[in-house]
Amino acid sequence: MSPFTFQPIGTIQSCFTEKFGIPRQPGLVPEARAVLEIVPPFDKAEAFRKLEAFSHIWLIFVFHQCLAHPWKATVRPPRLGGNRRVGVFASRSGFRPNAIGQSAVRLLGIERKKGTLRLNLGGIDLLDGTPVLDIKPYLPYADAIPDATAGYAPEAPANLKPVVFTTPAEQACQSADPAAYPDLKALIIGLLAQDPRPAYKESNEGKPFGMRLWDLNVRFRVDGDQIVVESIGAKN
Amino acid sequence: MSPFTFQPIGTIQSCFTEKFGIPRQPGLVPEARAVLEIVPPFDKAEAFRKLEAFSHIWLIFVFHQCLAHPWKATVRPPRLGGNRRVGVFASRSGFRPNAIGQSAVRLLGIERKKGTLRLNLGGIDLLDGTPVLDIKPYLPYADAIPDATAGYAPEAPANLKPVVFTTPAEQACQSADPAAYPDLKALIIGLLAQDPRPAYKESNEGKPFGMRLWDLNVRFRVDGDQIVVESIGAKN
Repeated sequence: MSPFTFQPIGTIQSCFTEKFGIPRQPGLVPEARAVLEIVPPFDKAEAFRKLEAFSHIWLIFVFHQCLAHPWKATVRPPRLGGNRRVGVFASRSGFRPNAIGQSAVRLLGIERKKGTLRLNLGGIDLLDGTPVLDIKPYLPYADAIPDATAGYAPEAPANLKPVVFTTPAEQACQSADPAAYPDLKALIIGLLAQDPRPAYKESNEGKPFGMRLWDLNVRFRVDGDQIVVESIGAKN
Repeated sequence: MSPFTFQPIGTIQSCFTEKFGIPRQPGLVPEARAVLEIVPPFDKAEAFRKLEAFSHIWLIFVFHQCLAHPWKATVRPPRLGGNRRVGVFASRSGFRPNAIGQSAVRLLGIERKKGTLRLNLGGIDLLDGTPVLDIKPYLPYADAIPDATAGYAPEAPANLKPVVFTTPAEQACQSADPAAYPDLKALIIGLLAQDPRPAYKESNEGKPFGMRLWDLNVRFRVDGDQIVVESIGAKN
């Protein structure tokens, strides 16, 4: 069959400047916000008419950091501890034959700023720079199938962990510029409560981890059942 | 931005050999079945391992009959009677900048038949011959947002119409080869109850319509509040 070629309609600007720490699905961390900047000629105001009456939208996007990798028939989803393989089509991994993703995200607003049409989004799970191919309204009557059975991933990841801040980390949150780092503390809590560490966690107790948000390095470690944010500072 | 090119992983074989009569969203007519035939090299059994534990899957596909048409900033969705315009990104129309669709459909089974890997699907809304780019498991915890607000399309189309059959139409259903035309009567009822007529219905009373299913022509008309199936025969 012939291939098909698509032109991105816009690009994501998000706090996620690296893959580590990104929520594993959309919606898990409402504080994770992003801006979708629409590029010409797709940025006509009328192309978005009535979209703001929808609370949620679908983004069809490209896993752009996965394109250089050949696909494999099986992947090891984090949900299975990272040590059991499932078929790539039974996973939502970005490493797939066609590196296309879909995310249902919250539409917070649409604005034009310095001539650029911007969609403000919440609950996102997308890397900064993600190319977006399409936007569709979320239709609960067709898209919401709450009683679908879902194999090895029937529910959201459980066991959210308590997140505590050291005094320096707390102070860093309070002094951070809210225009550059909106809702920084709530965002960090939301992300770290999901426990973004790699699947083999047993040996990670006490080990320091760094999660990058914008240009910040958020350093944390696990202490018993809680996650301790140790410092927040400029990324080296 | 650079364009992205994708290779189809398979093709839909469905009863819908023309656009007229296709349900407006997936899931509305469970009897609408299809087969997704996977093409090499994507047809490795292990690429589908554990997929059968999911009741529903997403198909990312190409609106292949829309590709030749230039996109317009606004479209007239049937839900608004076909006479009011909304932005193309506030619609699920196939006529969009990137003619990509997504449908959540029921996965009925996976089989290999004469060497071809086939996924049996239900509740589909896809034309015969639709190229499929990706398959993903449906994850209710991320994909089901039952309380999302959905602008001009908050609920499934209402007012399902009663469907009655003339004696010749009834006999045609009973004598149809169930291997070639599975569940023919239930399928016709499910499709026509949705009232697939064009939006300007007022002038359509009594007018004959034809809906093509496989190679059959299903002729019907509207009589008061009900839909009468008049005949079912080979398409000329």
